[in-house]
Amino acid sequence: MATVTLVSDTDASPEVRAVFDDIRATRGTDFINNFWRALACDPATLAATWARLKVIMGPGALDPLTKEMIYLAVSAANSCEYCSHSHTASARAKGMTDAMYGELLAVIGMASQTNALANAMQVPVDAVFKAPEVKA
Amino acid sequence: MATVTLVSDTDASPEVRAVFDDIRATRGTDFINNFWRALACDPATLAATWARLKVIMGPGALDPLTKEMIYLAVSAANSCEYCSHSHTASARAKGMTDAMYGELLAVIGMASQTNALANAMQVPVDAVFKAPEVKA
Amino acid sequence: MATVTLVSDTDASPEVRAVFDDIRATRGTDFINNFWRALACDPATLAATWARLKVIMGPGALDPLTKEMIYLAVSAANSCEYCSHSHTASARAKGMTDAMYGELLAVIGMASQTNALANAMQVPVDAVFKAPEVKA
Amino acid sequence: MATVTLVSDTDASPEVRAVFDDIRATRGTDFINNFWRALACDPATLAATWARLKVIMGPGALDPLTKEMIYLAVSAANSCEYCSHSHTASARAKGMTDAMYGELLAVIGMASQTNALANAMQVPVDAVFKAPEVKA
Amino acid sequence: MATVTLVSDTDASPEVRAVFDDIRATRGTDFINNFWRALACDPATLAATWARLKVIMGPGALDPLTKEMIYLAVSAANSCEYCSHSHTASARAKGMTDAMYGELLAVIGMASQTNALANAMQVPVDAVFKAPEVKA
Amino acid sequence: MATVTLVSDTDASPEVRAVFDDIRATRGTDFINNFWRALACDPATLAATWARLKVIMGPGALDPLTKEMIYLAVSAANSCEYCSHSHTASARAKGMTDAMYGELLAVIGMASQTNALANAMQVPVDAVFKAPEVKA
Repeated sequence: MATVTLVSDTDASPEVRAVFDDIRATRGTDFINNFWRALACDPATLAATWARLKVIMGPGALDPLTKEMIYLAVSAANSCEYCSHSHTASARAKGMTDAMYGELLAVIGMASQTNALANAMQVPVDAVFKAPEVKA
Repeated sequence: MATVTLVSDTDASPEVRAVFDDIRATRGTDFINNFWRALACDPATLAATWARLKVIMGPGALDPLTKEMIYLAVSAANSCEYCSHSHTASARAKGMTDAMYGELLAVIGMASQTNALANAMQVPVDAVFKAPEVKA
Repeated sequence: MATVTLVSDTDASPEVRAVFDDIRATRGTDFINNFWRALACDPATLAATWARLKVIMGPGALDPLTKEMIYLAVSAANSCEYCSHSHTASARAKGMTDAMYGELLAVIGMASQTNALANAMQVPVDAVFKAPEVKA
Repeated sequence: MATVTLVSDTDASPEVRAVFDDIRATRGTDFINNFWRALACDPATLAATWARLKVIMGPGALDPLTKEMIYLAVSAANSCEYCSHSHTASARAKGMTDAMYGELLAVIGMASQTNALANAMQVPVDAVFKAPEVKA
Repeated sequence: MATVTLVSDTDASPEVRAVFDDIRATRGTDFINNFWRALACDPATLAATWARLKVIMGPGALDPLTKEMIYLAVSAANSCEYCSHSHTASARAKGMTDAMYGELLAVIGMASQTNALANAMQVPVDAVFKAPEVKA
Repeated sequence: MATVTLVSDTDASPEVRAVFDDIRATRGTDFINNFWRALACDPATLAATWARLKVIMGPGALDPLTKEMIYLAVSAANSCEYCSHSHTASARAKGMTDAMYGELLAVIGMASQTNALANAMQVPVDAVFKAPEVKA
């Protein structure tokens, strides 16, 4: 169904295999989801995307579950079928409860509504919201 | 600059005035930002939107700052200039540090990148990500 | 196929059941479409969304069919598969003829084309199109 | 502020001039808004876009005001600043009242909200909404 | 699965048949893809869209393959499932290699990432990037 | 006007300074555009984004100008004001003529139009466009 052939373990080149191995080790599972098998059509983009994603989605000033819910919110706004499914599953695996998911949906819906209204009316930005342009 | 005239306190009808009063009381500030002054062109939508937003953005299974960052992520994905400004300001007022903002931006950027890639390649959703259609 | 389990009549809580009953009474049909069965995963959002939608889509300064076509146009612009299907069906049920649908499609296509062109060229807004910022 | 230089009447080539003349004659005004002055950077696209838009936006199975409101709804969904301004102005010139505009905004907001929710939850399309694939 | 019935050759009206014949002659194949069979629900839009697309996608200052890749990039950004599939196939038929496709995906991903970041931060446009508003 | 303070050369940390230096060396100019000065609010994202962008936008199977036009097309589709300006300027600097820009605009417009139509009608993907799911 994809525009590319998903790369199986058997067909993975050494470069692709190394990324698959790191995904498995990082996540502690043997499962490689289809996004990475599709992106393996371009090993350089596969390696760069995974390397950066691994850093970004790890713990930091924001916890991994919060990051996963933000990821899901962006995916819904961008109408990404695959990402909406995969990041809902990831968020649940990281501890998102039904109550948290319900509130996440409510925020996504409210934001989309007011985004459309602000864009329709072209509301001017309040002066107090703007940062100074260049640090003195 | 808007497509509507922003409603000042002087020109507010009693219905609009009641919403403005509730915004002030809820937020503990006299400041009413332009979104509400613009939406006041339709008092019914103003009242309904504020009533729902007040509930959604309050504390619950998710804390108010997390909700604000999710709101901001959706606003960036939807290219809403006004909302990107106003919700960055709100998130900062609720405690978002520079480090948290940096990570939020990184997640928004990464999600947008992989959303576009998954959409371009039309990656098929893995069977394990799907919920059963109807509860038995 | 959804990220949530669709709620059947049997599994509906009293709060969800009350919304389903009102949908049936308002529409004069026993059929509840999947959107509401999915949204029932969060009864509060289900109730609030239905309550507001029922008011908005009823007769007013705009007739229900015009509102349905506007809804469909937004859904197509937002790449919503579900909504494109459901609101096409609703518009037809409210009297949209093939000729009207053809013209609706033509407007959606033309708007999307000129939106992209105006965004690409960043055309400055003509002064005559702008409303005064604050009502005196 | 545009990425192209807006073409003034003085600098218009004969091909561009002919389109400007037709816009003036069709609309019964001497005013040419910036979109057309920008698009004049590519006379072939200017001519083709205007020719098609003139037909589409004229009276038919849908009246011109309804078409203008649909155009505006798509423009808001696509975050087009220029188009949101210009089509609000056009809709008002064609008779959109404040009450109609308020309801239009409410529908745009509600559609954007449910689009995001349906995309987030990946609601499966009800079988009854689908048309047969090929006419027998 | 569509919202309209796809028009088969047998059911095509003379006006639709003429467009189908021109698609076949232009492309040198008997195959008519579903987009045109769906758009045939509105013969006027079918004819106008095909007539303009045939001109735009032909050779010019940009070669047909470059145009096809640009088309595909826009389709991915707009989350169009059908168009992502059909224009990937077209680009391959016009000579897009796996290496070219990999680089195209990388550019689409990077652009989507920086678009979201620039929108989130509302970066002010550098003065040197702006064209003068009106040609003197 | 941004949500962050743009980082000047004086205020740049050593990590930010190193990226600015590499941008200058790579591009052969002293000019650093605002996107990088804004992204410098998060040095890690600045460094990672620039490092990847430098590789992606260099010569390869696609030439740099083609990549720049693809980047611009995505930016227009995503309604990114900053990116539409900056990548139009970049494309011109890399040799995009007025004729090429005119054709690029025409393709962006046509793709946006047919994307919206295919999404509105939910056209089913032709079987011949699909790749096999897993390489045997």
